[in-house]
Amino acid sequence: MSNQNNGHNAGNGKKTLTPVSKLGEFGLIDHLTKNITLQNASSVKGIGDDAAVIDNKGKLTVVTTDMLVEGIHFDLMYTPMMHLGYKSVVVNLSDIYAMNAQPKQITLAVAISSRFTVEAMEDFYAGVEKACNYYKVDLVGGDTTSSHKGLIICVTAIGQAQATDIVYRNTAKERDYICVSGDLGGAYLGLQILEREKNLYLEDPVIQPELENHSYVIGRQLKPEARNDIADILQSLGIKPTAMIDVSDGLSSDVLHICKQSGVGCRIFEENIPIHPDSVEAAQMFNLSPVTCALNGGEDYELLFTIKPSDIEKLEGLHGISVIGRITPAAEGAKLFTTGGQTHRLVAQGWQHL
Amino acid sequence: MSNQNNGHNAGNGKKTLTPVSKLGEFGLIDHLTKNITLQNASSVKGIGDDAAVIDNKGKLTVVTTDMLVEGIHFDLMYTPMMHLGYKSVVVNLSDIYAMNAQPKQITLAVAISSRFTVEAMEDFYAGVEKACNYYKVDLVGGDTTSSHKGLIICVTAIGQAQATDIVYRNTAKERDYICVSGDLGGAYLGLQILEREKNLYLEDPVIQPELENHSYVIGRQLKPEARNDIADILQSLGIKPTAMIDVSDGLSSDVLHICKQSGVGCRIFEENIPIHPDSVEAAQMFNLSPVTCALNGGEDYELLFTIKPSDIEKLEGLHGISVIGRITPAAEGAKLFTTGGQTHRLVAQGWQHL
Repeated sequence: MSNQNNGHNAGNGKKTLTPVSKLGEFGLIDHLTKNITLQNASSVKGIGDDAAVIDNKGKLTVVTTDMLVEGIHFDLMYTPMMHLGYKSVVVNLSDIYAMNAQPKQITLAVAISSRFTVEAMEDFYAGVEKACNYYKVDLVGGDTTSSHKGLIICVTAIGQAQATDIVYRNTAKERDYICVSGDLGGAYLGLQILEREKNLYLEDPVIQPELENHSYVIGRQLKPEARNDIADILQSLGIKPTAMIDVSDGLSSDVLHICKQSGVGCRIFEENIPIHPDSVEAAQMFNLSPVTCALNGGEDYELLFTIKPSDIEKLEGLHGISVIGRITPAAEGAKLFTTGGQTHRLVAQGWQHL
Repeated sequence: MSNQNNGHNAGNGKKTLTPVSKLGEFGLIDHLTKNITLQNASSVKGIGDDAAVIDNKGKLTVVTTDMLVEGIHFDLMYTPMMHLGYKSVVVNLSDIYAMNAQPKQITLAVAISSRFTVEAMEDFYAGVEKACNYYKVDLVGGDTTSSHKGLIICVTAIGQAQATDIVYRNTAKERDYICVSGDLGGAYLGLQILEREKNLYLEDPVIQPELENHSYVIGRQLKPEARNDIADILQSLGIKPTAMIDVSDGLSSDVLHICKQSGVGCRIFEENIPIHPDSVEAAQMFNLSPVTCALNGGEDYELLFTIKPSDIEKLEGLHGISVIGRITPAAEGAKLFTTGGQTHRLVAQGWQHL
């Protein structure tokens, strides 16, 4: 494990590193954004003026924002700058998809301390650009400033949708089925492995990290993708979700958001929670329950949604979407039914950094 | 001068302070945003879902973002939390007005360290709300997270405008007149006074700060306003600016942005640069040239714009807008003509924090 604080291993001595002060504010912004071209017709004006201009031609605008702080949300010891740039975009796009909307633009504000070089920021922006290209969104504005310590990133994502397509959190109904895309818990387990290897490295830098056997869960942590395919899949099946949210805080927290806002309860069936075999294996290695990782881990960026009872047959034979429970009356509360036949109350974990 | 780090003087012992950890993430967000009501018809959905939803009914959307970092952009030693909340909003709205658009929504992301109390954050949000009410914008989304050190704020402002109303930076033409609203240099001088009094206080906490005689320039620094009136004034005169920018980096930098993007030069006449008498007095106290403060100080949040030569007579007799120069061919460069008859090249200062 190499210290990737600057995005480059200066020890190799191959690449010349440039202090940001050499370019100054305007120079750095120009340098980092010079390759950015606008892809969406709705992006009328991008970077370079007081504000960006967007034409959404009668559709609704959907907007979300997220801040990522070094040492809280990411550790540059094991997060390459390019992956960080990519993930910073993806976590915001995930919120737009969770509204059943299409992301079109992002703005990006970053604060950097003097330890970051121009090359490190180039890597970060390369990741941002990669995500923008893959998800077909335009970087239309931003702010680059300095921090006393560490890297702080704030991305705002803007999407659009027809009014009738938007899906909120507060519209789940009793008897609806609860579904989730992909699998859960992997990102949290990837983080546990990265943290363990970091600590071993800090104790003895000669030790080589053992990461190869865990590429799935580590990938879930370092390079998550947003589920841009679910809207199309559901539409092709003739299903419109009754409520939707992305799984960023963990299944427990996120299903509770839907329950609280919709004024309903739920039953989640443990045996139906989708967990990847590599996540199960990683959980066992740490003596953790794989289901606990799925419930409380977070950062999976899968979509959790409810569908009408009459839509359930349309999902038959479909891979990649799991039916994990039912919506119940509020009075029944939010419950987990375990494989062993027990019942537990679902509890939100949320963030407890402070 | 009291240390306002927590927004309250704990020494008074009058108000009980609550650690943020007592509420947790979701509790804090709920608590701080519970009074927020939406004022704009275009704000379809505010805080509480994955993203906010905005209906701009065929108008163009205008979006801008700014990050403010403790110790770089503000010092909590002399910045009350409420003023900080207010200013965080205003600096972003200023960018929307600089596009000749109307701000309608903001999102707010904040990262706070454990030294901030719930009460301090209440004060901050009270300032945000005050600005939202005054400028009639809705807080529609955000993110609250933790930082290892200090307070970091990121505001994204969203506005709307008819396509034909938007004014860019890159459309100034030769022979256009260059105008600026209000007066310049005050915010920078306010900062100098606050810094001086802070240093005196740190040397000897018994010394009482001398702030009363400088309320104008200190107000310009701590509680700036965005020029939401200029668009109406110009429209009533039948003037549409040919180019516009807000004065956030200092007159030099900002006029150079217009020149560079429009492919033109300029002549700025020193004697026409508007400077408030209190700013002149404060500058003399520090042995600074008032004009240098106006050129390089920044943070004035006035609007700098160009108008067609044929529109100049419409400004006659109007107070509060100064004609400070002319647009020239690019080959002439960007020049300052001093009162003493000398000519200087305008130089951008920008930010040199790193």
